[in-house]
Amino acid sequence: MTTVNESSSTSLELTDQEIFAAHEGGKLGIAATASLADPRALSIAYTPGVARVSRAIAEDAALAERYTWTNRLVAVVSDGTAVLGLGDIGPRASLPVMEGKAALFKQFGGLNSIPLVLDTTDVDQIVETLVRLRPSFGAVNLEDIAAPRCFELETRVVEALDCPVMHDDQHGTAIVVLAALRNALTVVGRELKDIKIVISGAGAAGVACAKILRAAGATEITVIDSRGIIHGGRDGLHPVKAELAEITNPRGLTGNLPEALAGADVFIGVSSSAVPEELIATMAPGAIVFALSNPDPEIHPEVAARHAAVVATGRSDFPNQINNVLAFPGVFRGALDAGARRISENMKLAAATAIAAVAEDELSADKIMPSPLDPRVGPEVAAAVARAAKEDGVA
Amino acid sequence: MTTVNESSSTSLELTDQEIFAAHEGGKLGIAATASLADPRALSIAYTPGVARVSRAIAEDAALAERYTWTNRLVAVVSDGTAVLGLGDIGPRASLPVMEGKAALFKQFGGLNSIPLVLDTTDVDQIVETLVRLRPSFGAVNLEDIAAPRCFELETRVVEALDCPVMHDDQHGTAIVVLAALRNALTVVGRELKDIKIVISGAGAAGVACAKILRAAGATEITVIDSRGIIHGGRDGLHPVKAELAEITNPRGLTGNLPEALAGADVFIGVSSSAVPEELIATMAPGAIVFALSNPDPEIHPEVAARHAAVVATGRSDFPNQINNVLAFPGVFRGALDAGARRISENMKLAAATAIAAVAEDELSADKIMPSPLDPRVGPEVAAAVARAAKEDGVA
Repeated sequence: MTTVNESSSTSLELTDQEIFAAHEGGKLGIAATASLADPRALSIAYTPGVARVSRAIAEDAALAERYTWTNRLVAVVSDGTAVLGLGDIGPRASLPVMEGKAALFKQFGGLNSIPLVLDTTDVDQIVETLVRLRPSFGAVNLEDIAAPRCFELETRVVEALDCPVMHDDQHGTAIVVLAALRNALTVVGRELKDIKIVISGAGAAGVACAKILRAAGATEITVIDSRGIIHGGRDGLHPVKAELAEITNPRGLTGNLPEALAGADVFIGVSSSAVPEELIATMAPGAIVFALSNPDPEIHPEVAARHAAVVATGRSDFPNQINNVLAFPGVFRGALDAGARRISENMKLAAATAIAAVAEDELSADKIMPSPLDPRVGPEVAAAVARAAKEDGVA
Repeated sequence: MTTVNESSSTSLELTDQEIFAAHEGGKLGIAATASLADPRALSIAYTPGVARVSRAIAEDAALAERYTWTNRLVAVVSDGTAVLGLGDIGPRASLPVMEGKAALFKQFGGLNSIPLVLDTTDVDQIVETLVRLRPSFGAVNLEDIAAPRCFELETRVVEALDCPVMHDDQHGTAIVVLAALRNALTVVGRELKDIKIVISGAGAAGVACAKILRAAGATEITVIDSRGIIHGGRDGLHPVKAELAEITNPRGLTGNLPEALAGADVFIGVSSSAVPEELIATMAPGAIVFALSNPDPEIHPEVAARHAAVVATGRSDFPNQINNVLAFPGVFRGALDAGARRISENMKLAAATAIAAVAEDELSADKIMPSPLDPRVGPEVAAAVARAAKEDGVA
């Protein structure tokens, strides 16, 4: 097993040289979309012409949506405290990730996006900063902010701003997990309401996965954190985990991974904690294993496949990659297209359904998700999210 | 004179239709500069490849300058309190101007730039916000912030941030005025140290013009605000004007425009206050008139020309346009190229010299400045500013 893991870690064979060369000077640029080619064009795009547009917006603030770029602009906001699997590496070191995210917003959602990384981790200060900057953007993607602070922060930012806000590490992950699970269950011929789900990890992703799976109809979910199975009888539960205890673990399980996995149908790993093969072997027949930690899955997918009917990871070099990029560009694009003021639960569920639907035609145990590069996904997700926004009346 | 003014106001003949059409959707877009075209490219620009770049920056923060876009990124920051000639129209209505500015940074300085407009006018809060956002950009262009608050704000932001900061309404204007005056004086065969200069307006532009002209060697400057000539004996002078009183008006003039203009060699209007032809007629022979208010110059240039040897305005539809776009792209580009941590007086003086030099070959009373579209200006200014930064040791 060790050998398999080691070979997989380097199977992409990316060299430092090509990686650093691709990041030289950063990965984003600004393009002027109005002509400045001659004196007349300059007079239109800048003084004196621009004064008429500014005066019009001064008289009717809603015109800013039409005559500025802000209405299609997502601020990708991070404090750098939970970057990829690297942890709290700070705002500067988080920038390459945020720039990558912005590039993905453009490529798959057709949205402009700017990284705003903050030299503070104080929730009050982050909220206050975004409130002051509110006229500068049209939506906020919170990114790579450590749990449990990320939960309070997202709630506070949603309350403070009249625009779509989403912490992607929570909800982007939850949406793609739900989409993948829907299709995996179709492959094994089961239904969400009938299965036992184990989620390893109660950080941003784990909590959001538990909530969206509940909202989608799952009845039996067990969540495990570093101290074991979360249940109502545990002392000192953070309020977020206390809430989880209420909506999960209906059989009142205690213990840890062995107790949870025995006879379970689905394992969802979002914790970076390795899971031994022996425990995966105790799952029910036809099990589904999503080992999503990056870069090292909780269990090597080829090992998991000895005991599971469907196996997925977060990596591009194995079948069934579950990647947030399938969700966030379309979710924000749909929300902004609909003029939504927030991102509702139904909008997230609609996104998951749309992603799953794209893969339905060629569904198999090794193909439960569309490719992250599939150009159909962004527009399909955007359309579904915009419809849900209108149905929910958040537009 | 009224007839002339009216015709000039519409001489560009820009229609609302073409102006608003050019601003539809805003004037900026984000471009991804790294490939996302295939799975391998995605693995390099985003996970897992990006983690190596983030980890490298976490170990050596200076690498952020090389591997992110921030080192070439100017934040164009405004609170919307003094937008063009429109006054305090707020951050949203200022956005078309800030987007235009960002487009000009790209076109003439080759720099990326993002508008950050703030829903606060409190100096402490603006400084605090920029300090929190510091890892997100490489320089700050303060824009369209009302005087006298702009003076304190700029000083505070310069102190708080270790990167180039410039309030363009002050120093960009001062740089182009000095450049234009240098060449105008060459045309009339005079020298800066020997002439009497009158500045109408003691806002952002007027104060900065007085200071840079002093720094460049002017000895006799008189500044006029809404209450008349600024002199040390006036009650209730704002500290900024008290400082002006010390460095200007050596003859201790009192009164207003008539007393100041009688026998003066240069008039610089940056106040939006109309100047009657009769007063321009009292200036010395070979006078120089810069009527820079936009969109309506303090005096129509054709009227001023009856009494002055050189006349300039801020407009593109008359000869001798004096426009900040000749300065700010090159100033910031030069500062960033040199790795400068601030923008020194010598860097501003060097910018003015470089701008003036571009027009020297074809110098005439009707051609004292390069065209704002002259592609030589940005690079020449950038090179001169970078040299000055190194000489000053601010790099």
